[in-house]
Amino acid sequence: MRISFIGSGRVATHLAHVLSISHEIVQIYSQQIEHAQILAQKVQAQAVNQYQQIDQNIDLMIIAVSDQAIAKVIEQLSIYLKDTLIVHTSGSTSLELLTQYHPKSGVFYPLQTFSLERDIDWSNTPLFIEAIEVDDLRRLTDLANSLSNHVYLYSSEQRLSLHLAAVFACNFSNYCYDMAKQVVDAQQVDFGLLYPLILETANKATQSDPKRVQTGPAVRKDLNILDMHQQMLSGSGRDDLKQVYALLSQGIIQRHESE
Amino acid sequence: MRISFIGSGRVATHLAHVLSISHEIVQIYSQQIEHAQILAQKVQAQAVNQYQQIDQNIDLMIIAVSDQAIAKVIEQLSIYLKDTLIVHTSGSTSLELLTQYHPKSGVFYPLQTFSLERDIDWSNTPLFIEAIEVDDLRRLTDLANSLSNHVYLYSSEQRLSLHLAAVFACNFSNYCYDMAKQVVDAQQVDFGLLYPLILETANKATQSDPKRVQTGPAVRKDLNILDMHQQMLSGSGRDDLKQVYALLSQGIIQRHESE
Repeated sequence: MRISFIGSGRVATHLAHVLSISHEIVQIYSQQIEHAQILAQKVQAQAVNQYQQIDQNIDLMIIAVSDQAIAKVIEQLSIYLKDTLIVHTSGSTSLELLTQYHPKSGVFYPLQTFSLERDIDWSNTPLFIEAIEVDDLRRLTDLANSLSNHVYLYSSEQRLSLHLAAVFACNFSNYCYDMAKQVVDAQQVDFGLLYPLILETANKATQSDPKRVQTGPAVRKDLNILDMHQQMLSGSGRDDLKQVYALLSQGIIQRHESE
Repeated sequence: MRISFIGSGRVATHLAHVLSISHEIVQIYSQQIEHAQILAQKVQAQAVNQYQQIDQNIDLMIIAVSDQAIAKVIEQLSIYLKDTLIVHTSGSTSLELLTQYHPKSGVFYPLQTFSLERDIDWSNTPLFIEAIEVDDLRRLTDLANSLSNHVYLYSSEQRLSLHLAAVFACNFSNYCYDMAKQVVDAQQVDFGLLYPLILETANKATQSDPKRVQTGPAVRKDLNILDMHQQMLSGSGRDDLKQVYALLSQGIIQRHESE
């Protein structure tokens, strides 16, 4: 397939890279031409920063930009790409946002966390596909199957609830690590001491119901410790962390109240 | 060494089990004799539920009970064990709580999350040791070194800040998994789809600064998505999760504000 990208961020970079193995990446569009050039060079594509420059002789256009920019992008693209299949890669944007401008649209959503410095294990990354026309669905499914062993046809509603869950499971758990690091950093204690705990907690959650394996002072209703920890946070001027501590502890207590 | 335990919960069970390989576990005390019996049988020890029954001919007594019960236990033990080294296993209880009743006291704190159904990788579990007398410190260090490659002499203050950080890194991240599961369960979507994301997020945190690899709508300041997610949670009657979503997103935004 001949494939182009709108966007040159983390998702575009990882996806263009893996797709370039078996497909031709034609163009990388970014408003900032320098950003487009960095990715284009890696996947031997052309960098562009004007919609008029877009090559119409392609099989698939992948929009990999922030959610709030998708509407503006599809409005422009629909002018220059009449019969080309266009997909977005977002968890929380409905297919309808594309189809209202461009009927031949779809979704190609990888449920993964992307950092520029880390390789992605694509074969184990769940991919969620959506399209209106059966032909498009088939082409997207074939493309997805060539990357991953876990391809699903999900509605926009299902994809949305997955993405919301992913914010809790991934973005918020990472922020918990970040808050933990701030606590030990303030005492010149090495954050690396927490690595075994972080890994064991994550592994456990993939093997047991996280509710059942919840540990800590909140689920034990150890009010003395809960109090002391909040006083420590307050005392070191971290009322922001104290607020998080209080709300999450209260949530854990209520969640296990009936036991 | 001849070692006895006060307590028969998760920490006592895992610790008695691994120590029984090279040492003699003499007695397991629990107020509920049936609980003591379950663990005692596994490590070929005697189960007791009266302080008067405690065998004084031991080298080490390990208190592995909830933090709020430690004071009452050491008060009783100090009557029956005059010259025996007594340690607790808590992250958030100071050594002083023991020494005010019993000078020959110490701390033996494993920084790990314990579930009954899962084996512990002791060699990679950090152990934190504290004692007043040099001889006691040496014996505890030898014992710790026989279990783990990561033994540290930490003050009560350092241990306390580690334990507080562990609540964020472990207990709260597990609660994030639990909340994620509640979100997908409500839509009959499989929680297992999030496993690759959970594991990648945890692995990433042990290889990069979690602040630097933060992803998601909050760090992107994608206000439309933040709004939509909170409306979804509200709309499905989960104002509790909405509150958590709002507070953590706000925390992430503020943390990255200066960038």
